[in-house]
Amino acid sequence: MAVNLASPTPDDLLAVPGVTLAAAAAGIKKWTRNDVLLVQLAPGARVAGVFTQNAFAAAPVQLCRQHLRQTHDIRALVVNAGNANCGTGAAGLKAARSTCEAVATLLACDATQVLPFSTGVILEHLPAEKIVAVLPDAAARLDGSPQAWDQAAQAIMTTDTIHKAASKKIELNGTAVHITGMAKGVGMLEPNMATMLAYLATDAAIAPALLQTLVKEVADASFNRVTVDGDTSTNDSFLLIATGQTAVAEIVSADDARFPALRAALIDVAADLAQRIARDGEGATKFVTINVTGASTVEEAHSVAKKIANSPLVKTALFASDPNLGRVLMAVGNALPALDTSKVNIWFADVLVVENGGRAGSYREEDGQRVLAPAEISMRVDLARGTAQTTVWTCDFSYDYVKINAEYRT
Amino acid sequence: MAVNLASPTPDDLLAVPGVTLAAAAAGIKKWTRNDVLLVQLAPGARVAGVFTQNAFAAAPVQLCRQHLRQTHDIRALVVNAGNANCGTGAAGLKAARSTCEAVATLLACDATQVLPFSTGVILEHLPAEKIVAVLPDAAARLDGSPQAWDQAAQAIMTTDTIHKAASKKIELNGTAVHITGMAKGVGMLEPNMATMLAYLATDAAIAPALLQTLVKEVADASFNRVTVDGDTSTNDSFLLIATGQTAVAEIVSADDARFPALRAALIDVAADLAQRIARDGEGATKFVTINVTGASTVEEAHSVAKKIANSPLVKTALFASDPNLGRVLMAVGNALPALDTSKVNIWFADVLVVENGGRAGSYREEDGQRVLAPAEISMRVDLARGTAQTTVWTCDFSYDYVKINAEYRT
Repeated sequence: MAVNLASPTPDDLLAVPGVTLAAAAAGIKKWTRNDVLLVQLAPGARVAGVFTQNAFAAAPVQLCRQHLRQTHDIRALVVNAGNANCGTGAAGLKAARSTCEAVATLLACDATQVLPFSTGVILEHLPAEKIVAVLPDAAARLDGSPQAWDQAAQAIMTTDTIHKAASKKIELNGTAVHITGMAKGVGMLEPNMATMLAYLATDAAIAPALLQTLVKEVADASFNRVTVDGDTSTNDSFLLIATGQTAVAEIVSADDARFPALRAALIDVAADLAQRIARDGEGATKFVTINVTGASTVEEAHSVAKKIANSPLVKTALFASDPNLGRVLMAVGNALPALDTSKVNIWFADVLVVENGGRAGSYREEDGQRVLAPAEISMRVDLARGTAQTTVWTCDFSYDYVKINAEYRT
Repeated sequence: MAVNLASPTPDDLLAVPGVTLAAAAAGIKKWTRNDVLLVQLAPGARVAGVFTQNAFAAAPVQLCRQHLRQTHDIRALVVNAGNANCGTGAAGLKAARSTCEAVATLLACDATQVLPFSTGVILEHLPAEKIVAVLPDAAARLDGSPQAWDQAAQAIMTTDTIHKAASKKIELNGTAVHITGMAKGVGMLEPNMATMLAYLATDAAIAPALLQTLVKEVADASFNRVTVDGDTSTNDSFLLIATGQTAVAEIVSADDARFPALRAALIDVAADLAQRIARDGEGATKFVTINVTGASTVEEAHSVAKKIANSPLVKTALFASDPNLGRVLMAVGNALPALDTSKVNIWFADVLVVENGGRAGSYREEDGQRVLAPAEISMRVDLARGTAQTTVWTCDFSYDYVKINAEYRT
């Protein structure tokens, strides 16, 4: 059960000129749902990505990095769910490459202009031939409609209970610019540069060098702020696509007057998707926003927020709606062993619970219970040693987290 | 339910001349069990300790550090369960100091010669007057028998299901030397210098400077190798006591010919206690030994072992006895992002499951299921990049972990 999260409908989504999509059912696991996604990008589209920092980067992640080093002129993406193609060695690379080659033949481009993505079980051989077999049909149905985006977001799910996509339209110099993104991910999820799989496309034109800076900036403000269980996936990939299909001239520099509005809109959609991931976290019954202020650096704020967000003791207390203040204190103190604790203040929603490192004099247990009861919870930790701050989104830790992960492969 | 762990009986324990103990029931929580422990050390005993690295070190931890800076001539310990006296500011320090002063008056020593310890809920005021009230009776019952050690180990429990104590006798130059230790801890447990509360006493004589080196060495080889949930407590304390009550002359240097045997015996008992903690980890159904070999440094081996041991995905798979190899791979890759994965081998018990970074050709799923079925599980990860190694003990992550921690305060 995702927390306060409904499926998007095609009405919520916008077409992005220059992007067409088609989903297909390859039967990678024993299921009949769509599990393959083909995306075509019109000539001129520019693409930049960020990928997992896990040493066991999956074969498709390795190929994505290799292809993006060779060209920014990407023409297609091929995505499969049900198998991560990770820890599969040379055979895994060959399997991923064969899907790129099949797409290249169908869409008349080079295999290096195709980026492959996989998500699912690790250490099992990818049945690439099943993917290749459904590609011709998918290529014949490529479509840029909101319906196609909606089906695409469904095809990339694994244990997600709800598919995740969002859109936004802004005007740059009087011209409409469209942004649509989709993401999947519910567990093995503490993105380190990106989430499991996320794609964000705009029809604005953005120069390759700027796009590469921008994709990191957007990831840091969105997917890198989510954690479900502190386990970074081997397949994390986040791609930013700029098709350049509007009348608006290419943006080449961050100093361009149009850039701030575009960046803000991209971050908006990415953060929306990132929050959807936390809301659909495995077994989640609570959506939790953790704000850390008064830090020396953003990295420091982030380390404190993540330590709270990933603490099994904090997460199980949140599941119980139990204002167990001590566990939050414990997590803060673990993140920063040299912290001057006498200045630390902590709020649950608007209730001051810890003041100057101790229980707030004004705090009453029933106030803590009241603000932790809803499905949407927030807390703020002020470290009082600087001006940097961050916000991290996470979920609680329930019986269902254990159930889902104890039974995942069966 | 602790994994393959029975309560010790007095028959399993040895008296340590120079140490007398008495437990008492102060009613710190709404319970009638013993929750206070008084320990007296004979004049001449030497004491060294290691304590939590958490910035929110509890008031008793702060006092322990202060007293040990002033003197090694410690005469008494006073321990309570049910309240951690942490995040309690000046009032907490005053409360802890008042228990030391009460003990000092009863045992005719200085308050700085008393070390206080607390374990339980964080951020709640310690009712020191309840402890002080039961101390005269406890002081009148001080006793060095194995029965007294057994009762002492029970008095310091919180959510432990089984009390933890162990003994060993060795001979040094023909003279019997006794070692007895006790520990408590089941959750908020990834000791960083020590476990929640652990005490190890010997009647050997060890010079203060050597004792201080030794306590760190013993902690690194025992309590620092245990993790239940990756959350380091605010009250972790491990104390090594050498009463010097045998005919054996004081050991002042690590070069002393008698030292290796004594150190090995102390580590033996401490590691036994540490393993009992993992076996009694909150909700544990499996006791898991993780051995990492072929590392560049011990720290590197430790970081890999801890990443595996603390991964919620690995722990829930172990709960299900599911040989989900990919999750172990994921954890290894997260610990060392720059690892050359092509040389990594992984065994579950004696079954090679990952070879050269990929699924072992000889691996059959039923072999993985067979070796993960028992309550005692082991795995080995060989990184093939050096000669350093380590072993870490942990437990799995079950429904009961969530249940226990969602309901702890109620």
